[in-house]
Amino acid sequence: MDVYEKIYAKNEEMAKVLSEDLRDKKILCVNVLGSPGAGKTKSLIQIIKGLEFENYVIEGDIEGDIDTVKLQELGIKVTQIDTHNACHLDSPQIVDALKDFELEEGIVFIENIGNLICPAEFKIGEHLIMLVTAVTDGSDKPYKYPLAFQKANIILVNKTDLQPYTDFDAEFFTKGVRYNNKTAPIFYVNAKTGEGFEDVRSFLVDFYQEFTKE
Amino acid sequence: MDVYEKIYAKNEEMAKVLSEDLRDKKILCVNVLGSPGAGKTKSLIQIIKGLEFENYVIEGDIEGDIDTVKLQELGIKVTQIDTHNACHLDSPQIVDALKDFELEEGIVFIENIGNLICPAEFKIGEHLIMLVTAVTDGSDKPYKYPLAFQKANIILVNKTDLQPYTDFDAEFFTKGVRYNNKTAPIFYVNAKTGEGFEDVRSFLVDFYQEFTKE
Repeated sequence: MDVYEKIYAKNEEMAKVLSEDLRDKKILCVNVLGSPGAGKTKSLIQIIKGLEFENYVIEGDIEGDIDTVKLQELGIKVTQIDTHNACHLDSPQIVDALKDFELEEGIVFIENIGNLICPAEFKIGEHLIMLVTAVTDGSDKPYKYPLAFQKANIILVNKTDLQPYTDFDAEFFTKGVRYNNKTAPIFYVNAKTGEGFEDVRSFLVDFYQEFTKE
Repeated sequence: MDVYEKIYAKNEEMAKVLSEDLRDKKILCVNVLGSPGAGKTKSLIQIIKGLEFENYVIEGDIEGDIDTVKLQELGIKVTQIDTHNACHLDSPQIVDALKDFELEEGIVFIENIGNLICPAEFKIGEHLIMLVTAVTDGSDKPYKYPLAFQKANIILVNKTDLQPYTDFDAEFFTKGVRYNNKTAPIFYVNAKTGEGFEDVRSFLVDFYQEFTKE
């Protein structure tokens, strides 16, 4: 094993332990991926404000606390990880950040670094990967970033209000998603207005019930 | 020096040699950065179609040749690098890719991987970094991805046609850019219609003249 493989293996092992530990405590961990500006934070706000769970957010950022402040102002329990130019979060960072909460049964959302590549490669203890993309990002994204779309368990296509002004082709997009991923549901949403988020929340509620069943 | 530092140092060294070699041959090398879907390829098409140089494009992609085919169909000299999940291009890849061209005096544009983080950290022989962002990406990007904005020599803000439908705040954006970067000019463009690209081309022509002055 070379040095890269060792780091990777160590992260994977820690992610597995963390994921099992959270499951035992009935805490669902959602890893939120997306490119810069796709609307990850705004989507989280829409999801959380209608979700009757204890919700926690870990904000991953290169630098700055713009999103953390936004969430705090809404009374959402949030803590921040600054990666200082690292392009993804890793499991040790998550284990550390979780110490900032007194966790009860519920959902931890982790907003990963805005990047469709590296975050898809590193597990961070999640039970679910939520990918946020936007119609303004273009319908070719599943073809260009296949790993992120392959690993996603749920896909949000944001900024539907801008669809009439773009050349976003939903059929081409879905075809690209399905080439990589047969099962992840695709939800068209507008994080500005909240449109479409009811279905996202229903999906999460159902998933949580299944997740805590036994 | 640990293993990471060694790889990084080797890349930097190779970038320096490549950059000098290209300069001797009066070939300007432009490293094009931007997040997924910001409009890097479309911007390149607009730039190149009005630019009276020998132009070459190296397309960096995780996977797939969608953008390369687009450029080929327009008669643009293009070659492709597939990084297979690596999040940035590096100098050895560029040295290899350049062998696909019979280079004459002119401009090589390198479309880096769609990512605002890693590509900003690795030199690839460029003399100029062009950063492409879009109004739909949000005006907070310079605050969240400071390194990319700090290193940019020229900044394009694309999709101006969508500005009325977004909350993009040009003043806040400029403030964020200037916090990191005092000099890079900011051009508002629309790669769909070509609006604003005349100024971008003028900048490149002037830069090239200065560059080849000796």
